[in-house]
Amino acid sequence: MKNVVRILGLDPGLRRLGWGLIDVEGARLSWVAHGVIEPPTDLDLAVRLLYLFESLGAVIAEWTPDEAAIEETFVNMNPSSTLKLGHARAAAMLAPARAGLPVAEYAALDIKKSVVGAGKADKDQVLFMIKRLLPKADAAMKADAADALACAITHAHKRKMNTLKRMLA
Amino acid sequence: MKNVVRILGLDPGLRRLGWGLIDVEGARLSWVAHGVIEPPTDLDLAVRLLYLFESLGAVIAEWTPDEAAIEETFVNMNPSSTLKLGHARAAAMLAPARAGLPVAEYAALDIKKSVVGAGKADKDQVLFMIKRLLPKADAAMKADAADALACAITHAHKRKMNTLKRMLA
Repeated sequence: MKNVVRILGLDPGLRRLGWGLIDVEGARLSWVAHGVIEPPTDLDLAVRLLYLFESLGAVIAEWTPDEAAIEETFVNMNPSSTLKLGHARAAAMLAPARAGLPVAEYAALDIKKSVVGAGKADKDQVLFMIKRLLPKADAAMKADAADALACAITHAHKRKMNTLKRMLA
Repeated sequence: MKNVVRILGLDPGLRRLGWGLIDVEGARLSWVAHGVIEPPTDLDLAVRLLYLFESLGAVIAEWTPDEAAIEETFVNMNPSSTLKLGHARAAAMLAPARAGLPVAEYAALDIKKSVVGAGKADKDQVLFMIKRLLPKADAAMKADAADALACAITHAHKRKMNTLKRMLA
């Protein structure tokens, strides 16, 4: 294992795919980069998915993360939205999987708990905490990128817990 | 336009992804190949999607189809199944899109109407008609592959109608 692990967090959507990268060294987290991929909305579904997949592939090639983490999808909404989100989420998972990265999945509730301390936090609270936890992150960051960074931070915490458990076992 | 157009039909699923290839020359349809991709069920979701994507990519590289067609997903079922199907369907659309193929979408109802003549046809009726329409297709064909061939045939009919419309316009 390297001393520094670079984690790619993903907040998938067909209109906007948020991504965020952090470096983890022991207990120290540091911001690396983030962004939002927005495919043109007039494309056919297959081409839109390809746009997400290729753009995220370019981000991975540029920043070479070691592991990826993505939000689990909340399915209790209208079926047509669920289906669209499922498509976008698969494109977002395929890009890191194809680059050989493990892709962990976290429930939205656990991400909010991990970052804000409460499962019921709203987007603004997540954004506020991300800026505190990662002071170097751009102040003009969009909510989708903040959610992606929150997912990366959750994975960093989870990895640390698993390492501690292994040491105590 | 080539005289012979090779069409790849797809019947997506996370457990089984059916594919079928036909050649279309004027009004003549001929069977080329078909199969079912079944990823090991013990894989993580991301790796399972990668398995579908890469396996279908290999089929496309081997058989070099010109166009692809896929079933639209019926969303009126339980949300968790819808989400899973959305993931599988995206992987199935990304493989041809990445190879530069246009990917058409058809409702299940239209596929059944196109092949059997009735929207309420069951799997056995589709299988029966596929064997009649494509006599060279293997008699031991699975239902997933038959549905994929049915989707390819629907696309062939639709293409022909569009060509006629252009000639009459």
